[in-house]
Amino acid sequence: METLTAVLVGGGCFAWLQRRRKPKSVEEVPPKMQRLVLREANKDITLAKLEIEEVDTPQPKPGQLLIKVLAAPVNPSDDGAWKTPPSHGYPLPLGNEGSGLVVATGGGVWASQFVGKKVAFTGKSYAQYAVVDAFGMGPWSLPSSIKVEDACAYFVNPFTVISIVEAVRSKKGKAFIHTAAASQLGQMMVKYCQKEGMALVNLVRRQEQVELLQKLGAKYIVNTSDPEWKSALGKMMMELQISQVVDCIAGDFTAELIELLPPGGTAWVYGRLSGKDLSSINPIQLIYFGKKLEGFLVSSWIFKDGVVRGLLRARKQAAIVAKNFDIFGSQGFKDVSMKDMHQAYCSHLASGATGGKLRVRPWSFKG
Amino acid sequence: METLTAVLVGGGCFAWLQRRRKPKSVEEVPPKMQRLVLREANKDITLAKLEIEEVDTPQPKPGQLLIKVLAAPVNPSDDGAWKTPPSHGYPLPLGNEGSGLVVATGGGVWASQFVGKKVAFTGKSYAQYAVVDAFGMGPWSLPSSIKVEDACAYFVNPFTVISIVEAVRSKKGKAFIHTAAASQLGQMMVKYCQKEGMALVNLVRRQEQVELLQKLGAKYIVNTSDPEWKSALGKMMMELQISQVVDCIAGDFTAELIELLPPGGTAWVYGRLSGKDLSSINPIQLIYFGKKLEGFLVSSWIFKDGVVRGLLRARKQAAIVAKNFDIFGSQGFKDVSMKDMHQAYCSHLASGATGGKLRVRPWSFKG
Repeated sequence: METLTAVLVGGGCFAWLQRRRKPKSVEEVPPKMQRLVLREANKDITLAKLEIEEVDTPQPKPGQLLIKVLAAPVNPSDDGAWKTPPSHGYPLPLGNEGSGLVVATGGGVWASQFVGKKVAFTGKSYAQYAVVDAFGMGPWSLPSSIKVEDACAYFVNPFTVISIVEAVRSKKGKAFIHTAAASQLGQMMVKYCQKEGMALVNLVRRQEQVELLQKLGAKYIVNTSDPEWKSALGKMMMELQISQVVDCIAGDFTAELIELLPPGGTAWVYGRLSGKDLSSINPIQLIYFGKKLEGFLVSSWIFKDGVVRGLLRARKQAAIVAKNFDIFGSQGFKDVSMKDMHQAYCSHLASGATGGKLRVRPWSFKG
Repeated sequence: METLTAVLVGGGCFAWLQRRRKPKSVEEVPPKMQRLVLREANKDITLAKLEIEEVDTPQPKPGQLLIKVLAAPVNPSDDGAWKTPPSHGYPLPLGNEGSGLVVATGGGVWASQFVGKKVAFTGKSYAQYAVVDAFGMGPWSLPSSIKVEDACAYFVNPFTVISIVEAVRSKKGKAFIHTAAASQLGQMMVKYCQKEGMALVNLVRRQEQVELLQKLGAKYIVNTSDPEWKSALGKMMMELQISQVVDCIAGDFTAELIELLPPGGTAWVYGRLSGKDLSSINPIQLIYFGKKLEGFLVSSWIFKDGVVRGLLRARKQAAIVAKNFDIFGSQGFKDVSMKDMHQAYCSHLASGATGGKLRVRPWSFKG
């Protein structure tokens, strides 16, 4: 009965919010726009074919917004789409999140409030314009203190960091290990864990990464190129009573970390920077020591208790990001045009650069 | 407060049950006995050194029983101990469960009831006598209808089968896949699932195993040596809405099964018959499809909610075994002496024999 009431009330509110009002716009929108699409996937991303396509500028329906995209980040997870032929065929529009100005709406009470506002959003972002639902995962209105281009990476990394800390706490963890800890996400993790009083052991593989994290005030850092790294890590794990590791490398490395965990520990895998499958996992570790291996994906975490609770959790996390933009604002963006992004990203990967992030500027930044 | 009361009441009961009464015995016990021990571990079990040792017959303390061991099975899990040097040094007494006659007690109200009774038990069983706590994982008094030797495999396989069905149900499963399904345990699983109305897909790798399970009335059988096995399995999974697989093979095979699971599915691993580590697991399956990999161990399952609930769960499972001995009595035992067991077991493994089980008879069966 309680559920039925909630559904009816929720449905009623939603219908009211979508109620037709006159579509609005704040500036003239050209009939055509450019977007970056995948034309041919390839396991070797340097061989994937990405190209600029000119298409009709999309029209927002009631309850939707048209966003003039001012910036969109290239996250390590973005290139996954370039490797596999898309299930709905080519061309596949690219980009997963971005920021910009809401220039029009197709109408609706809820949607109308956003017109003329700076927002961060999730949706196909490597395009001059994007259409998004006004009621969903974003859009998030940006505080006036934040420069709109700097908020393009508002969702993927920040929400992942916040969600991982929630996930560790859900298993009663007060400390955990994080791998590839010098990444953009890793640096946010260091700062957010400091704020949250969560002890964090950072695993990196080069001395300059140790120094980078020390500058951020990280207390526990282990360099895995040190031959004694396992005993150093073991001591920290004892001291901090760590039973969880959050790994984005995969390959054999996850198995090594599983061996180090105490009985009943959990290894969360949220990435595969090694490009390799999980291997060399001794089943004895799972069977006799009760260790678990789970994947972690930010959207699955947010919506794990259903859509309504998921949207509420997302609003809560967005508020944390807005309030702590000193932590969650990505650093060291390198601007590129849509046309140059593919090559620039492949060079960036080949250089093994730590930190730094590409930012696509669909309005022809030097493009 | 409630917990404190429970602890005090429980402690009081326990103390009363352990209260000294005159030790009892039903037959004279020789001062010396023979037992089978590990003298040197080896990864190749054919090279491990097992030998018969003569030692003082152990004396039960108050609350303990002395069992004259009449039979003890050799489970596939037993040889694990032969591979790794024991943490408490050599000699390592062997055997994990068995059945026999309770010939003496060191006293105690609870223990005294068992004297003269036929029981199944867990404890070092490849010996002429075993001392066990009267209050723990067993001993389980055997119904008069069961021949004592036939109840030697009362715990490991039967409790595992019952616990696996509980585990699948704990994740709301009404059906699951079981690998190496023609094993002794697999055959029990077929019959127990029939009784419980749990749909079961049996994976085997040879035609004669298909026929063996068909004779037991198994409805869903897939022969993995058939090149079309994956599509056949896929259809059954759709029909039965299967999202769990229970695997005792490990190696690459678990990864293949994980790929076949629907999003959110779970792979439980409870054995490593392949002798290989878990490998080739695509992290995408865990990250984007939310699939989980967990170990399964019968004792961990039973005690997952603490000792008191664990002992109650074990009592409940023992009652199921006693009531359904047509299902849980192992079939086709081959009797061997302690002396001959090592060689007989290695030959049994080398022959790749399906079903059939060795039964150690410490009182020199033809030994």
